[in-house]
Amino acid sequence: MTERAYNFSAGPAVLPEPVLAEVQRDLMALPGPRASIMEISHRSATFKEILGAADANLRKLLGISDDYEVLFLQGGSRLQFSMIPMNLLSGVQPSADYITTGAWGQHALKEANKQGDMNVLWDGGDTNYNCLPAAGDYEVNKDAAYLYYTSNETIHGVQFGEEPNSGDVPLVCDASSDFLYRPLPIDRYGLIYACAQKNIGPAGVTIVVIRKDLLDRCDENLPGYLNYKTHVDGGSLMNTAPTFAIYVVRLVTDWLLNDIGGLDKMYELNQAKAKLLYDAIDGSEGFYEGHATVESRSLMNAVFRLPSDELTKAFIAQADERNLTALGGHRSVGGIRASIYNAMPLAGVEALRDFMVEFQQANP
Amino acid sequence: MTERAYNFSAGPAVLPEPVLAEVQRDLMALPGPRASIMEISHRSATFKEILGAADANLRKLLGISDDYEVLFLQGGSRLQFSMIPMNLLSGVQPSADYITTGAWGQHALKEANKQGDMNVLWDGGDTNYNCLPAAGDYEVNKDAAYLYYTSNETIHGVQFGEEPNSGDVPLVCDASSDFLYRPLPIDRYGLIYACAQKNIGPAGVTIVVIRKDLLDRCDENLPGYLNYKTHVDGGSLMNTAPTFAIYVVRLVTDWLLNDIGGLDKMYELNQAKAKLLYDAIDGSEGFYEGHATVESRSLMNAVFRLPSDELTKAFIAQADERNLTALGGHRSVGGIRASIYNAMPLAGVEALRDFMVEFQQANP
Repeated sequence: MTERAYNFSAGPAVLPEPVLAEVQRDLMALPGPRASIMEISHRSATFKEILGAADANLRKLLGISDDYEVLFLQGGSRLQFSMIPMNLLSGVQPSADYITTGAWGQHALKEANKQGDMNVLWDGGDTNYNCLPAAGDYEVNKDAAYLYYTSNETIHGVQFGEEPNSGDVPLVCDASSDFLYRPLPIDRYGLIYACAQKNIGPAGVTIVVIRKDLLDRCDENLPGYLNYKTHVDGGSLMNTAPTFAIYVVRLVTDWLLNDIGGLDKMYELNQAKAKLLYDAIDGSEGFYEGHATVESRSLMNAVFRLPSDELTKAFIAQADERNLTALGGHRSVGGIRASIYNAMPLAGVEALRDFMVEFQQANP
Repeated sequence: MTERAYNFSAGPAVLPEPVLAEVQRDLMALPGPRASIMEISHRSATFKEILGAADANLRKLLGISDDYEVLFLQGGSRLQFSMIPMNLLSGVQPSADYITTGAWGQHALKEANKQGDMNVLWDGGDTNYNCLPAAGDYEVNKDAAYLYYTSNETIHGVQFGEEPNSGDVPLVCDASSDFLYRPLPIDRYGLIYACAQKNIGPAGVTIVVIRKDLLDRCDENLPGYLNYKTHVDGGSLMNTAPTFAIYVVRLVTDWLLNDIGGLDKMYELNQAKAKLLYDAIDGSEGFYEGHATVESRSLMNAVFRLPSDELTKAFIAQADERNLTALGGHRSVGGIRASIYNAMPLAGVEALRDFMVEFQQANP
């Protein structure tokens, strides 16, 4: 069997090894239907049990009340960039407020502006998105249909540690790269969504948690697939759901509940993992330079630079030889990006930290 | 290991066993990246090779020329129902012609009518969609933006054996349930699409083959994910593609090329499989009654009834005991539906045929 590396990919990203082992074990045939999870109807009792368990696990992990619907959709965050304004804007509230803290927020804003004239409350572009707005940096428009932000920016490595205060305006969050990394006060959100391929499962399914009262805004003339209400009415089965991806989400949320012990424990572990890397950066006397300001640092994506492109290339190549893979930074920021999502074990981060120290010693 | 049944599910449906075995073998780690196919970047060299091979396999199987783009999208056929009119209608050509031969055609028409006023050329509703239009039953509107039809209707079990003649009007086909079941004269089509979960792979990816000149119609103000041109420009990677599903499509198309030997061979096999079931129906002296007229019969979905609901239930239960599963018909038609897509082996169809004969003998 092929050896597994410690995989620091920004997404699709590492999954829990026990989850992969279970997928592999049952791949040819689930016991009940005697067929692969890929081969059974989305309306079969077996799949409905899987979908129900995924929903129940998410509700348990995050404390989601009956005031919210949980949807499992296709199209990724890109489709949400359009679906959110298409569903939540209206003649009475034709605009929404956007906080832009990185590349994903920029993409979301661009799509929203096709649906109306959005109001940019704050944009971090002047400092290449290395920080977050401070309290008092913006004021939410009371007439806004919603306030939109991105909780974690994977490319720039900045992350909100807590929710922006949106007052009575529904808060809408792209949590694609940090969903389930800590407990969330769900009742602060009007809508929170996440594509699965960072922290929840394989690419191909996007989870949307939406407060039920917002469904009244969904126009029945919207294209059927783009209307949240259609999906709610169909229980995420208005069409053939991405069954395999949802099956893996169910297993990942089982793992969070049973192996990890819930999101409080996950958060402790994520803090410990990130501290290892940021301590290594801060202790390197400038050899490693973080992109984000200290107070904006992401627990999911540690983005940092080395003194030269030559050293960066050597770092990536030598790390790969030690089974520490996919460490190259995004082209718009450069350097190194170590993505350490929920499923990255502590041992993997320790191995990377040890390598960082050794590499610096070898290249004084 | 759990025994595998002969699985007659209408979709998600049976996959080739050698494909499942390969997925299982490499599930924990692909040799190069030392990570699962689910864990690697859609922009990695490994995944780009997989995507390129899936594209090349489809082009080889179907003889797709450089005049066409091949896209791998999310959202299933439901999203195509909207994307097709959103992209292909225009101020100059605000309407299209629709031929409706079953439930899927009805759904497509409903969504298209949200984007304009479609022209229904022919509708089989009067006879519960048990037949196809005959030559001369309709005349294509020369000003139509396109002519839309569904090549195979899974619920009603009717299938076009050849393409409708659309003249100079671009022909648009929903081939979701019979794509790759026979060689196709691709140059007859303006656009042909298929969600994967019947004949090509797991749910969660939809293949769209579009003639390049039609891309000129795509309005840049469309939501990004809904614009074919955006996906062409991004090489199906404008966002994170459903990587696992595309990986399986690559393996299924490998299987068609190498194990089956191409679509001529696949078509011969599909004809032989369907003949076994329809001969059993026709030889039953009315015990089994087919839904579709003889000349409209689908090679993919054999839909038939038994003399009573009681016998239907007994048939389904006793078949299941013999590992012949998922034979219940759709609620709108009732009876039995045996879906015998490409991956259903001849031995499975023979086993079903034998059971049909025995069941009739036991219930004279």
